[in-house]
Amino acid sequence: MMTPGKFIVIEGLEGAGKSSAVSAIKTVLNHRDIPFISTREPGGTPIAEALRDIVKQGMANEHVCDSTELLLMYAARAQLVETLIRPALANGTWVIGDRHDLSSLAYQGGGRELGMAKLKAIKQIAIGDFEPDLTLYLDIEPSLGLSRARQRGELDRIEQQDLNFFERTREVYLQQVAEKESIMLIDASQNMAQVAASITAILIQYVDNI
Amino acid sequence: MMTPGKFIVIEGLEGAGKSSAVSAIKTVLNHRDIPFISTREPGGTPIAEALRDIVKQGMANEHVCDSTELLLMYAARAQLVETLIRPALANGTWVIGDRHDLSSLAYQGGGRELGMAKLKAIKQIAIGDFEPDLTLYLDIEPSLGLSRARQRGELDRIEQQDLNFFERTREVYLQQVAEKESIMLIDASQNMAQVAASITAILIQYVDNI
Repeated sequence: MMTPGKFIVIEGLEGAGKSSAVSAIKTVLNHRDIPFISTREPGGTPIAEALRDIVKQGMANEHVCDSTELLLMYAARAQLVETLIRPALANGTWVIGDRHDLSSLAYQGGGRELGMAKLKAIKQIAIGDFEPDLTLYLDIEPSLGLSRARQRGELDRIEQQDLNFFERTREVYLQQVAEKESIMLIDASQNMAQVAASITAILIQYVDNI
Repeated sequence: MMTPGKFIVIEGLEGAGKSSAVSAIKTVLNHRDIPFISTREPGGTPIAEALRDIVKQGMANEHVCDSTELLLMYAARAQLVETLIRPALANGTWVIGDRHDLSSLAYQGGGRELGMAKLKAIKQIAIGDFEPDLTLYLDIEPSLGLSRARQRGELDRIEQQDLNFFERTREVYLQQVAEKESIMLIDASQNMAQVAASITAILIQYVDNI
């Protein structure tokens, strides 16, 4: 019987260095000849990418309501998990995710203050008990992350929130790290080479222990 | 203080005659000089209409999963209620809706067999306790409704379901009629003039009793 693939997720605030982290993971998996695909949320399929555009940019000056944003995030996630992630894992392919459910808990539950009960209820409706096998959370002070993100260029609708929004978001990330063994915290205030080295070390250990 | 408007919803299977019913309601409201807007679900705002297109047609041959469909229906509804319906009602304007939450209970809960518990949970997340003031349900045998809809032209993704799907959908409509006083059943197997006459009579009585 085929050994299922593993679902590895990178999480963190804007400017935490998620893209570099994804590269470091890919390098390890390539080195070990592990087949993988990488994806991002919201997005990852044509339908989910269309929903990402609406969530990120709004449409025709229409404000995206908080409940709408939450429901669209989960619509995109349900579609991605069902059409891409589950089939890949079943087929023995690993999946690297740039964000997943923890982002919604943190940003919509914490940042937008919609609360954990609502978030847990909608997660069950959308994807049931589906969970990543390993989550790497890149922890960074919101002010530092945002200043890095600003250097990168224009900020989208969600990235334009105030600092308190990101403080609340980080707080949920940290709570979840404390609650779940499958989430590992990496200090993302280090320089990029150090962050990549930490991620590489964790991944090698993870792969070797399977 | 401004008297809030009323939210009147037309419901029913494909081919039940919802468009003619909406026209009959508009005629009554115009006659009584009641200000109103009309809308449809899913849809009614630019964002919600974009979601409607995805739900109705899919995208680039990508299958819309049942959970995704459900979440998109409620994303569109949350957006419509928050940005259009609530402000209109608060402003004293009546709203005529071509479908609302009852459609999701019937089609996704019944037709797709996602169940009432899931539907009630997601409704709370999306729009809380928001409800129409009056719902007119046009009841028709699925086989008769579908043959009428087919004469109208091409069927969309949802309209292409088999007859059992629509039997299950109708069953939920009938259960809800039995449970809620604010839903009135109209026999839509009558000819169009008779249906319009029934609706006109109900609306006149409703307006006069406010």
